[in-house]
Amino acid sequence: MGSGQVSFGRTLVVAPHPDDEVLGAGGTIARLAAEGEEVFVAVVTEGKPPAFDPEATARIQGEARKAHGVLGVKETIWLRLPAAQLSETSHATVNAALLELVSRLSPQTVLLPFVGDMHMDHQLTFISALVACRPHQAEFPKLVLAYETLSETNWNAPYLSPPFVPNVFVDISDHLEAKLNAMEMFASQVRQPPHERSIATLKALATLRGATVMRKAAEAFVLIRHVV
Amino acid sequence: MGSGQVSFGRTLVVAPHPDDEVLGAGGTIARLAAEGEEVFVAVVTEGKPPAFDPEATARIQGEARKAHGVLGVKETIWLRLPAAQLSETSHATVNAALLELVSRLSPQTVLLPFVGDMHMDHQLTFISALVACRPHQAEFPKLVLAYETLSETNWNAPYLSPPFVPNVFVDISDHLEAKLNAMEMFASQVRQPPHERSIATLKALATLRGATVMRKAAEAFVLIRHVV
Amino acid sequence: MGSGQVSFGRTLVVAPHPDDEVLGAGGTIARLAAEGEEVFVAVVTEGKPPAFDPEATARIQGEARKAHGVLGVKETIWLRLPAAQLSETSHATVNAALLELVSRLSPQTVLLPFVGDMHMDHQLTFISALVACRPHQAEFPKLVLAYETLSETNWNAPYLSPPFVPNVFVDISDHLEAKLNAMEMFASQVRQPPHERSIATLKALATLRGATVMRKAAEAFVLIRHVV
Amino acid sequence: MGSGQVSFGRTLVVAPHPDDEVLGAGGTIARLAAEGEEVFVAVVTEGKPPAFDPEATARIQGEARKAHGVLGVKETIWLRLPAAQLSETSHATVNAALLELVSRLSPQTVLLPFVGDMHMDHQLTFISALVACRPHQAEFPKLVLAYETLSETNWNAPYLSPPFVPNVFVDISDHLEAKLNAMEMFASQVRQPPHERSIATLKALATLRGATVMRKAAEAFVLIRHVV
Amino acid sequence: MGSGQVSFGRTLVVAPHPDDEVLGAGGTIARLAAEGEEVFVAVVTEGKPPAFDPEATARIQGEARKAHGVLGVKETIWLRLPAAQLSETSHATVNAALLELVSRLSPQTVLLPFVGDMHMDHQLTFISALVACRPHQAEFPKLVLAYETLSETNWNAPYLSPPFVPNVFVDISDHLEAKLNAMEMFASQVRQPPHERSIATLKALATLRGATVMRKAAEAFVLIRHVV
Amino acid sequence: MGSGQVSFGRTLVVAPHPDDEVLGAGGTIARLAAEGEEVFVAVVTEGKPPAFDPEATARIQGEARKAHGVLGVKETIWLRLPAAQLSETSHATVNAALLELVSRLSPQTVLLPFVGDMHMDHQLTFISALVACRPHQAEFPKLVLAYETLSETNWNAPYLSPPFVPNVFVDISDHLEAKLNAMEMFASQVRQPPHERSIATLKALATLRGATVMRKAAEAFVLIRHVV
Repeated sequence: MGSGQVSFGRTLVVAPHPDDEVLGAGGTIARLAAEGEEVFVAVVTEGKPPAFDPEATARIQGEARKAHGVLGVKETIWLRLPAAQLSETSHATVNAALLELVSRLSPQTVLLPFVGDMHMDHQLTFISALVACRPHQAEFPKLVLAYETLSETNWNAPYLSPPFVPNVFVDISDHLEAKLNAMEMFASQVRQPPHERSIATLKALATLRGATVMRKAAEAFVLIRHVV
Repeated sequence: MGSGQVSFGRTLVVAPHPDDEVLGAGGTIARLAAEGEEVFVAVVTEGKPPAFDPEATARIQGEARKAHGVLGVKETIWLRLPAAQLSETSHATVNAALLELVSRLSPQTVLLPFVGDMHMDHQLTFISALVACRPHQAEFPKLVLAYETLSETNWNAPYLSPPFVPNVFVDISDHLEAKLNAMEMFASQVRQPPHERSIATLKALATLRGATVMRKAAEAFVLIRHVV
Repeated sequence: MGSGQVSFGRTLVVAPHPDDEVLGAGGTIARLAAEGEEVFVAVVTEGKPPAFDPEATARIQGEARKAHGVLGVKETIWLRLPAAQLSETSHATVNAALLELVSRLSPQTVLLPFVGDMHMDHQLTFISALVACRPHQAEFPKLVLAYETLSETNWNAPYLSPPFVPNVFVDISDHLEAKLNAMEMFASQVRQPPHERSIATLKALATLRGATVMRKAAEAFVLIRHVV
Repeated sequence: MGSGQVSFGRTLVVAPHPDDEVLGAGGTIARLAAEGEEVFVAVVTEGKPPAFDPEATARIQGEARKAHGVLGVKETIWLRLPAAQLSETSHATVNAALLELVSRLSPQTVLLPFVGDMHMDHQLTFISALVACRPHQAEFPKLVLAYETLSETNWNAPYLSPPFVPNVFVDISDHLEAKLNAMEMFASQVRQPPHERSIATLKALATLRGATVMRKAAEAFVLIRHVV
Repeated sequence: MGSGQVSFGRTLVVAPHPDDEVLGAGGTIARLAAEGEEVFVAVVTEGKPPAFDPEATARIQGEARKAHGVLGVKETIWLRLPAAQLSETSHATVNAALLELVSRLSPQTVLLPFVGDMHMDHQLTFISALVACRPHQAEFPKLVLAYETLSETNWNAPYLSPPFVPNVFVDISDHLEAKLNAMEMFASQVRQPPHERSIATLKALATLRGATVMRKAAEAFVLIRHVV
Repeated sequence: MGSGQVSFGRTLVVAPHPDDEVLGAGGTIARLAAEGEEVFVAVVTEGKPPAFDPEATARIQGEARKAHGVLGVKETIWLRLPAAQLSETSHATVNAALLELVSRLSPQTVLLPFVGDMHMDHQLTFISALVACRPHQAEFPKLVLAYETLSETNWNAPYLSPPFVPNVFVDISDHLEAKLNAMEMFASQVRQPPHERSIATLKALATLRGATVMRKAAEAFVLIRHVV
């Protein structure tokens, strides 16, 4: 990235559901793309009937495409596992999907949802993706980070589920605008304040995470592994 | 407090240094005062020469008085222990000061700085105050909460010092204004954004903590003990 | 509750299996009922053939009804999910059952089994109930607490599963008798000392939890969320 | 064991897959056997078609038999649950298999894989085995320990999954040779350095764990429960 | 100890103040002594004027002597560091006192107060004793355990100070009587129920810790290190 | 560093005592120096009479100079605070020394001893250095890491002091030789195996940390903060 300190390189962002990637890492994606890195977004699930209306699914996928365009995502991959049902999908199936993805793309950096998020799809995506990133072969992602998701990360059980205590801060001062624009593409997902999933809250979070490290806006992450 | 759910009753807010009480609990103080509760603020330390300029100390104490006026604090108590030197003050001395205070005021509720804050004065204030609140006699505070302090709570070591993961949220939607006004009284302490100790960051934090529980603004706390 | 400090209001106690509600919160239920609050108990599972004998299931449900009568429970709701098989029941099904329950009853306070209990039914009940209590709409439970269950909470893996470290203590000095009477209704569940699930152990736990806060008897909880 | 401090007595080692017992406790097994204790190894899973090639499964089981011979294992029990699919096997089935095993063998000591290992088979084996070891009847294992497994224990999420921080160290200075020999029997599993599952890494780990307690070689464990 | 499983051998119990050793390990001391082991108790501090009345100090030391007689302690060592002032005593001094003690007695087993106790004397005793037990020379204690102290262990900050989650349980069914008798020798320290430091609470704790492992009475410990 | 992923830039390694920097980060120092980065080592303490023999102090400082020469350290700074007495040195003094250092050198990267190490000098060095690295001004270190120290990090209290669970791995395959050579310069500090502070143990640790990420040798760190 910009400062010459870290090069994220080819980057894969794994989103359990469309919009998680924007909530958690939209500014970082925009910054990486602006700096010339290739950023891939893999959307793990999609709403399937009868639990979900196919039209709603199509709509949100269209929104995601527009949001990814705003951010400069190079390619969006749809894994099409069943939303809200990862816990009923065989662990081997989820593992295989993510392993194939990581093998094929060979990303240097992977961004994951946080294992302490309230939604089981987030937890299971994290777990399977971590298996796919195991450092046991010649090639594996050198940098693995977990992002926070408003309306998931703050609602789990304090001191009983793993807490999100960020140790990596990405300056997105020049890319907050793009992040908020991308989020606005998700007309079906954005809520009015004071809901967590609102533009105002997203902005407040960027301000707070930025202030922690003297930046106008930042996205915060928990480091899972960095091999240098 | 308002909703009829909890009555904080007579409340003591313990601040290691002037302005911590506003940063961490200014909105809650304003709300309690507005609801007719008696709120006491104890400022534990003061800057002493040669480490601190007496004029600067006088100035910040004056700012605190004005801020407390804005919030409706009933009485400010100055314990006048040496700032930034609690770790060199005998533990028995700090214990005694806080014990005397709690015994004299008999508060039903006590608000403390967070033990995981970076500043040792915060840690030691928390530890001694907790001793003063021991539930081993007829009278003791029934509700003990720890507040977060911008520019202290977020700078400690992730996953190595105790993390601030809030489980109590006080709605301050109608009192955020008073909190920010009170903070502005601390002309010598407020910084420009993107510093953590800025009005903008304080506002962002209130927005974020509020959104977590569908409120326009909130202050968040970690529960230490509640006896019902 | 009595002291005027906290009003629990309309309260829902969620029990994975009949008797968990008495072991963990029987005294609190009795106190709330005595103070005029409406207390609902939802029993999440029932033993189903072939794993369980229908007669045994009927017997324990009859015992529960008697116990709830002793405590003053307003209404017992039977969710009838399969006992010891929640981990094979779809997560969406458990979520839906608890969400419907919380929506219909609109409790102000919810008491849950502890997520660190050894029994997976306890863990999964906690997780789904927490989803049902999300603070993201106009109405949601303002106070969520987790109770401890003798013969579950103490048998999980020390320092590896989430530890039960209580921060809320409810004085049940005047209601311990009712709690023990209610437990005795569960003739099929009570064991002889030194088994954890014995009257003597239950009494010892109430004595210990009480002594921690200078009360003759108490029930202890871990706070999950309190919105004030 | 040797020093007269602890007598492990009849010991059961539970291995999710063949070779876990050697990686984690091979030296301890060899030492116990040499000291005259009866050591049983239960292999929980086996690779089943179509996911696994039956020939490969037969080969690795043959390797395990040879390894157990080297170590002096008294009896190997094959539970034959499906490898890499414990999360799709009913929890009740895994519980029942381990409960039957513990009841039948009545071991005084049980060694388990670590619940924080990356592989779900390890986690689920731990959880079900802990249920089987509950101290609620006349007979139960008095000592329960969790071992570490190279290529599983170090790859989970730092600070988010339970960390392996050993508190029990078994001196295997005289039995490291046997452990390494046993591992070499697993021709299909051993990898070349710098892979974690290599002889060189296993030796380094034994050296490190030994040095922590001034021994030439040791195996390290996390204590789950010891009843004296 | 009795069952032939563990031999504690020569044992040193370190008490920050007289009576901690009885509250935390009185039954274990009685059992070890009855089984023929040599048990030493080191009392780290004594109340010194002006903070403490010399007569009170003499009285409590006399009480301790009687209590130790009841339990069968072989020798009581008085380190005479200043009570409630360990945090103002140089760390090197406390280290040296404990190092000399451990070197001279060469205990196989050491029992310590818990580092998460509320009293700083407990924390600092633990820390210095752990230094004295470092496994870096030919001789060092092979078994190090931390005991719990009613009126200290339960009053620290939940989830913020290290929690006492016991993993070692010593059956004291035949020695609870002796423990309670010894405690009664401390006329100046025992309180009436419902105070934590009462005979009734001590009994309740022994019942609860026992029930967890199907014993009539037990003392519970956290394992710090066991070298086998 | 080499791979183009991270540029450590101007780097400061803070060592409580001479040789900590080599034990924890000797390979990383050698690699950085080889790659052209400027590496500074600050030795915080020195043994002072009467606790320490001035000749011994001079000898070990000479050893450090030789070791630093081997590694390619640009400059060694001696802060000369009293060894084993940081806990008796005023916190303000230690803070000031480290703050002045960080301000003067303006390092981009800082390597610290681990706050969970057994030695209080390590803990206090960490705490004061973290204050010096606060991200609240224009310039501050962008990358802060904590290293592990054989004979300190493994001897603290499992699950009670902060655990070292590494998330950053620096490949030192080409620099292990230099690290071991540098360590051998410390003739007065190196011990014979199986002591933790031996060349053999240091080598085993590098092999193990390397194997975790498929490298021949690595040094492992815990990330404190990374601002990108």
